[in-house]
Parts: sequence; C-alpha cells; structure tokens
Amino acid sequence: MTIIDGKATATAIKQEIAAEVAARVAAGKKRPHLAAVLVGHDGGSETYVAHKVKACEECGFTSTLIRREADVTEAELLEIVAGLNADPEIDGYIVQLPLPRHIDEQAIIRAIDPSKDVDGFHPVNVGRMSLGLPCFLSATPAGIIELLRRYDIPTRGKHCVVLGRSNIVGKPVATLMMQKAEPGNATVTICHSSTPNIKEICLQADIIIAALGQPGFVTADMVKPGAVIIDVGTTRVPDATKKSGFRLSGDVDYANVAPICSAITPVPGGVGPMTICSLMRNTLLAAEKALY
Amino acid sequence: MTIIDGKATATAIKQEIAAEVAARVAAGKKRPHLAAVLVGHDGGSETYVAHKVKACEECGFTSTLIRREADVTEAELLEIVAGLNADPEIDGYIVQLPLPRHIDEQAIIRAIDPSKDVDGFHPVNVGRMSLGLPCFLSATPAGIIELLRRYDIPTRGKHCVVLGRSNIVGKPVATLMMQKAEPGNATVTICHSSTPNIKEICLQADIIIAALGQPGFVTADMVKPGAVIIDVGTTRVPDATKKSGFRLSGDVDYANVAPICSAITPVPGGVGPMTICSLMRNTLLAAEKALY
Repeated sequence: MTIIDGKATATAIKQEIAAEVAARVAAGKKRPHLAAVLVGHDGGSETYVAHKVKACEECGFTSTLIRREADVTEAELLEIVAGLNADPEIDGYIVQLPLPRHIDEQAIIRAIDPSKDVDGFHPVNVGRMSLGLPCFLSATPAGIIELLRRYDIPTRGKHCVVLGRSNIVGKPVATLMMQKAEPGNATVTICHSSTPNIKEICLQADIIIAALGQPGFVTADMVKPGAVIIDVGTTRVPDATKKSGFRLSGDVDYANVAPICSAITPVPGGVGPMTICSLMRNTLLAAEKALY
Repeated sequence: MTIIDGKATATAIKQEIAAEVAARVAAGKKRPHLAAVLVGHDGGSETYVAHKVKACEECGFTSTLIRREADVTEAELLEIVAGLNADPEIDGYIVQLPLPRHIDEQAIIRAIDPSKDVDGFHPVNVGRMSLGLPCFLSATPAGIIELLRRYDIPTRGKHCVVLGRSNIVGKPVATLMMQKAEPGNATVTICHSSTPNIKEICLQADIIIAALGQPGFVTADMVKPGAVIIDVGTTRVPDATKKSGFRLSGDVDYANVAPICSAITPVPGGVGPMTICSLMRNTLLAAEKALY
C-alpha cells in the first residue's frame, strides 16, 4: 500500500516553480505577482491565505494581501477587483471564499478578469475546462490530477467514483477524470446526497475521490481491495488534545481503509498541500501569459 | 411501454412559444429575431438550418439566413459575427457547425457575444451551465431534460448512464442530470470509448442516454427491464429504399430494446425535434433579455 505524500510532492513542485522563476528573473523578466483579497476573520480563510502567502515566498513570487473587514460593501469589493484587473503589475489574484452573506459571491467572481482568475472559478475558465480548452484549472481538481500523474496511477478505462458534486471539487474533477487525456479517460460515476446506493457503487470503484465533507464517510466495507483512495475532505473536528482545539478529518475512515487499498492520500498532508501548488502553477502561467 | 413522442412534444412547445410571441407583439414589443450563418453545402447542415428557419416561422420569429461559400476566410466569418453582435435587431444567432477545416471553430464560438449565443456553445454559457447559473443551455441536452420533464420521468436518485463524452451532448447532459434540480439529482455514470465494460454498466442503468453516434450500439442484452432509453444518435445509414438514399439510425437497437424498457425515444421523431425547440426557447429568452 502506497501513502500518497502530498506534502512532499507539493514541496518538489514548489522547488520546480522556484527554479523556473529564478530563470525568468535571471532573463530580466518580472517576478510573478499574486494578490489575495481577504474579507473578515474566518479562521479557515486566515489559515489558507497565510499558507498561500508563504507558498509565494517559497516560489519566489511577489505577493500582496488586501484585507477588508467583514462589513465591506459589494461595491467596494468590486472596486478592488476592477483595480486588480487594471493593474499590470498583478499577474493573478484570488478573492478568498467564502464571502460575508451580504455579498453576491458570483457577482464578484464574474467581475474578475478571466486572464487573472488563477483560482479558475470564473465561468469562462469553468467552461473552457469542460470543453478541454486551455484554462486556469481550479486548484483542488488540478492538484488531484497532478498527484495521480506523479504517482503513475493508471486511470484509462478505470472506474472512478466521485463522491460530491460541488462546483469547486466534485464536478470539475469528474470532468477532468473523463477527459481525453492522461490522467483521464476514466469511466466516471458521480454520487451525491440524492444517491441511494453509494456503498454498492463505491464497491465497483477502482478509484474513489471523496469530496463530501463528511468525516469518516468512506468505510472499509465500501472499498474494493486494491482501490486507490483520494480524500479531499478537510472538516475541522473538535479535539481537546490539540492546541488549536480541533483536528482536520478527511471523508475516509483512514485507519480501516488504508490496509485494503493500493494507494491513499492522508488528511492532512494529501490533497491539501497540492491545492496551493496548483494556485502557484496558475500564477506562473498567468505571468507567462501562457493561456490568455 | 411508452414511446416518447418528441415530434408531438416539439409541436406543442412551438405552439406555446408562438402564443408568447403573439402576446409580446400585441404588447408592442419586437418579434424575436434569430439569425443563422451557414457555410458551404454540407447536406446535414443544409437540412438542420432549413428546419430552424421553418421553426422560426412556426414560432412567429423573424429569421435571417446568412450564407457563405466553403472558401470563406476566418477573418470574413469573424466580421460577420462582429456585425451580428453589434446589431440590436438580432436577438440571437447560431453559426452552423461543422465549419470547413481551415477555420478555427473555437475562435468563431469565442467571438460570439454570450448574450446572443443561443446555441449555448460559448465557454461562458458552458461554464454557467456547469455552475448551475442562468445561461443558454445547449440545445440537445436541454431538449432531453424537457422530454423527461414533460413525460414525468423520475430522475432523483436514479442511475443515469450517459454513453459518450462530447462537448455538445454527453458532458452537458451528464452535468444537467446530476444537478440539484428536477429533472436532475440523478447518480450519473459517463462511459466512452475508453470504457471496457459498457454492457455491465448499462445493465445497472435506470436511464440510458446514448450519444455515441454508433448505430444500434445499445442492444437488448445491455438494458435492464423497465429502464428509460433516450437515443440521441442520428447517423445517416445508406438505404436504397429511401428516396434520399439514406435513413437516420439511432444508437439503440430499437426493435429489440423497445419491448423491455418502460419508455424510449424513437429515431427519428424523438430527441431530434426537441433540439430545435430548445433553440427557439433560447431565442425567446434572448429577446426578453431574461438571462443577460
């Protein structure tokens, strides 16, 4: 059984990107510059953005963090987005989600210039991804595909069962897994809250990608021996033994599933670190004007 | 067993649209105006465009047909597209595909104003569809969903197997079937040319949507008794007994499959006529500025 080490893979990728950036800078080109807009003080968002800023340093990028309080208006946020769109120094940027309820997230996302949308959330990038055209792939699905590629996990003709149909993981990773590409070319089944027989379907899977956000949902009796398990879940579960008061729990009952599968991603240290790598890769592509 | 009559359903829908148009015109609003750009003399394309022009008449729309020979340049075509984008009289338009090989189809599609893209092929509309946002749904998938709705075929929690992963049918209809909507909420499996065990998977299906373009591919031994069969195939097969020299063949072995399923679409007269209805519906939505 292989433990898919997302942390080590992410470190390797960031080193590759740093080398590319060093070569760019040596050739007189500008450093890639990523900006992040962070609204309010959500604990998860604070952590993610801090990790992204740190990853920028590791990759040799310039980074800018724009903070606003939770009472920022939609108009103010749209003005910030317009400014970032117009600023030639900024290669790409993200608006950290979720946003406060009084702000229309989709209106903000639609306002982002698709050529700077390194999160890959704009409808143009989502549509291009679906059509198999060059685009900024959204970070988590891209990270999963990169892990499968680097661990040489065969996908062609395999049955991949995706649990969850979210816009940021389930649907895009299903699309990438079925695409005419390697990794890809898998038969894909998407299960969700309306699926009555998830266990029966999972038992047929060569690859399970679990993205439901339900700690320990995938149990050993749902997994075919030898299957590959990709666990996208990262739910904060209260844990008094931790200094932070919580631990991250995946969607998979790791202790009991790991012994029967052929490869598995742990939580933390699996898909999570790869997500930030995808964002760094997209920012480098944006700086190179490789797509738009 | 129910034969799903796409022709009768399409006639009813066109009558509904015609009534809405009559009410619009009576209220002093303009008639919806659909333009179609037809390049060359491909037999299939000629037929489709002729049907679309006729459907416009039935719905009370104004229609404009712009014809160019197969040696038209990409630049000339882009100029026509720019003209249609700018023309306030035109509510929506289509560029009939396929285009000659020397023209980059995606470049033409990307040039279409998404708010006039009544075929739903522009990445913005594809992305919005995937995200579950208001958009022009591409015609064939929308027609399939409408047939399921009008025939009250339950989809929630059903296992829908889609055969084919094309950009215009397989991928979008899979997305619509899994979406949080009714019809929708189905567990969806997408099979394609790299799937080794299509028969085994089809035997689990409550609903099969066949869009491979392989005449008679779905045989009776692949169908669970009581399943619903949607046949999207329309391949021209040589037939000396026909005046035209060919007949349209679906992807399903209709004669042997029909007796064991609960509902089935014939070819012709099933999904085909619904496709044009979806285009008419989109054109009316465009005229009403209902989406953009």
